[in-house]
Amino acid sequence: MKIDIHAVEALDRDDPLAGFKSRFDLPEGVTYLDGNSLGAALHASYAEIEKAAKREWGQDLIRSWNKAGWFALPLTLGDRVGRLIGAAPGQTAVTDHTSANVYKALHAALGLNTGRHVIVAEGGSFPTDLYMAEGVIATRPGTVMRLEGVDAPRIEDLIDETVAVVLVNHVNYKTGALRDMEALTRQAHAAGALVVWDLCHSAGALPVELDRCNVDFAVGCTYKYLNGGPGAPAFIYVAKRHQEKASQPLSGWWGHARPFGFERSYDGGAGILRFLSGTQPILSLRALSAALDLWDEVDMTAIRSKSIALTDLFIKLVEARCGAHGLKLVGPRDGTVRGSQVSFEHEGAYEIMQALIERGVIGDFRAPATIRFGFTPLYTSFTDVWNAVDVLHDVMETGAWRDSRHAVRSAVT
Amino acid sequence: MKIDIHAVEALDRDDPLAGFKSRFDLPEGVTYLDGNSLGAALHASYAEIEKAAKREWGQDLIRSWNKAGWFALPLTLGDRVGRLIGAAPGQTAVTDHTSANVYKALHAALGLNTGRHVIVAEGGSFPTDLYMAEGVIATRPGTVMRLEGVDAPRIEDLIDETVAVVLVNHVNYKTGALRDMEALTRQAHAAGALVVWDLCHSAGALPVELDRCNVDFAVGCTYKYLNGGPGAPAFIYVAKRHQEKASQPLSGWWGHARPFGFERSYDGGAGILRFLSGTQPILSLRALSAALDLWDEVDMTAIRSKSIALTDLFIKLVEARCGAHGLKLVGPRDGTVRGSQVSFEHEGAYEIMQALIERGVIGDFRAPATIRFGFTPLYTSFTDVWNAVDVLHDVMETGAWRDSRHAVRSAVT
Repeated sequence: MKIDIHAVEALDRDDPLAGFKSRFDLPEGVTYLDGNSLGAALHASYAEIEKAAKREWGQDLIRSWNKAGWFALPLTLGDRVGRLIGAAPGQTAVTDHTSANVYKALHAALGLNTGRHVIVAEGGSFPTDLYMAEGVIATRPGTVMRLEGVDAPRIEDLIDETVAVVLVNHVNYKTGALRDMEALTRQAHAAGALVVWDLCHSAGALPVELDRCNVDFAVGCTYKYLNGGPGAPAFIYVAKRHQEKASQPLSGWWGHARPFGFERSYDGGAGILRFLSGTQPILSLRALSAALDLWDEVDMTAIRSKSIALTDLFIKLVEARCGAHGLKLVGPRDGTVRGSQVSFEHEGAYEIMQALIERGVIGDFRAPATIRFGFTPLYTSFTDVWNAVDVLHDVMETGAWRDSRHAVRSAVT
Repeated sequence: MKIDIHAVEALDRDDPLAGFKSRFDLPEGVTYLDGNSLGAALHASYAEIEKAAKREWGQDLIRSWNKAGWFALPLTLGDRVGRLIGAAPGQTAVTDHTSANVYKALHAALGLNTGRHVIVAEGGSFPTDLYMAEGVIATRPGTVMRLEGVDAPRIEDLIDETVAVVLVNHVNYKTGALRDMEALTRQAHAAGALVVWDLCHSAGALPVELDRCNVDFAVGCTYKYLNGGPGAPAFIYVAKRHQEKASQPLSGWWGHARPFGFERSYDGGAGILRFLSGTQPILSLRALSAALDLWDEVDMTAIRSKSIALTDLFIKLVEARCGAHGLKLVGPRDGTVRGSQVSFEHEGAYEIMQALIERGVIGDFRAPATIRFGFTPLYTSFTDVWNAVDVLHDVMETGAWRDSRHAVRSAVT
């Protein structure tokens, strides 16, 4: 079947999520396919930040810790994120950054699984997970790491009776490959290992079922698909069955059972509370809060359907219209094992992305030779996909990307 | 000399810092003496947050990491905080919360001072410092803590050749007592120990001279005297001489020498960079940025003179006008060894503070029996001091505070 602009416009007319786009403040003349790096801004987030700043900070000052619910935010926002990742209430907190939460989760898992000293992870992981694992190992002499892609081709082959914890990304940040959470968790448990899932590239991108998959720990960020704002605090999930016995060394005042008792010794609070640490950035949390107001209305099944349709369409159009120019699909062709992003390899990847950005199509570049595009069903339309490929086609056909060779290299996760 | 309202008004007329007050958005009818817990909002911070949200996040999206300098913020803001705490550039970063920074600093100090296993701290420390030290000890078996007030009356008596690091508050959060940074640091160094100073209650309250005092590490928050906004990220200082050899286990991507190289192994960046960890909350950092624009204009010597004058006046007026009601000064009577806060003990402390707050005078309560008042020279006037004591006098004389007995107990640091 030939796809043309009319067929694409028909997809938009039939899109049950199309109404959400107007809730976002998207720049004119831009096709934004980088919501998997920094999600777009909601109009409601602006209003929420202004209220938090002018009314709550400015006028109510210290009283807002109680009156405006500031103190409750990590857990109230946590439960709302929890709904999107298949976590019943009381297991998710929004706090700190993903890196710190990886550190807490690994320490907690190693503490629960005493006598084992192996962390299994992926050589192709988003690097900070590995860096934090190194930090954990530095404080737990004798602990070692085994890496997929280094010690064995598949992570499944690294899991045996010596493994304490498997740290794994649900969706690979570079290829978009989606892991089978249920199967891998089952395998780890069968070997007596615990699992920490990194959901940075799946939370808000597709349905996640932490409770159903019997996951032990999960972490993830809120500034990508969840649209929490630049650097908005991350989340951590700890399964209820582990909470009583779990501990983590970033044992700050906010995780204390009686934070206002000003006691001399630490006594970790009940449940997920003990995974909090220090004082959280309220203004940034409030931007996220407004985004979660929107997410409260969203059905993740609809998100997934549209995500697969968007990414399938993108691959099909790129291969049909730009196939002659050496762009090679990276990651799954089968939508059911793909996150909400698509990557292509090309020797001129960096220059191609520069040329696209100059023409208002924003994706990103990942070293050494990958261009990456994120598709966010809340505000990406099928027409956006068409337009992006149109520009890519033009850049490749005319060879215009070669003019971007001298652009300064820079990128951000 | 009798002090009356006319004398107090004259002090305001002669105050060289008086002009700063209008830069703050202070609520009508409130005398705010809790800037040592949450600093007041600047009008400029509202504008800065709005710009960061609407223009940078909303319109420029991912490009703002470079274009708007987001990525540079921890170090650019760090150097500006550095000026206020006597730190030459390149030694201070604004990042994470104080609790996490205590954790990093203690680990780094213990790592530099190998073979020693004792942490000396204060039993009367703000508790999170002790809780984080417990977390460090949990990951470094064999490390022990000695506490002032438990193992000896004075911290000076706990420092010997077995001590790796002294963790100490510059100004006590409850009493306002100010430590002699130079002398204590010298004593610690003479015994071969390193020092971590917690500046939460001194940064922005008085001149701090980290470099001159040869301090090793320091941490502190930015949402009190520095007016960075609720939960704004904290800072960490690492003396240049230690940076090359120091390491800390929260080794996240932002502290990597090549954060966009997406390398598999951690390689800590040069200088203070390796004390960064994960992604920071940009909107909260930008509120702080606006406050630092004001601080760039401020001379800390003028801050200190006014601070001592404000606190001296407050003590004098309380004792003169409310002396019959059993309020007992806690902490130093000598202004030169006092931070910018004053506390009184009273068996009805909680109820007295409730009564004051109901009447628009906001200080805070610290368990079990302390009322605490912070004096922030940028926006507290001498007339504010007069008014606060006037209300306190009324509450005590009439016994009105007894009516607040049934108020719900709550407080926040």
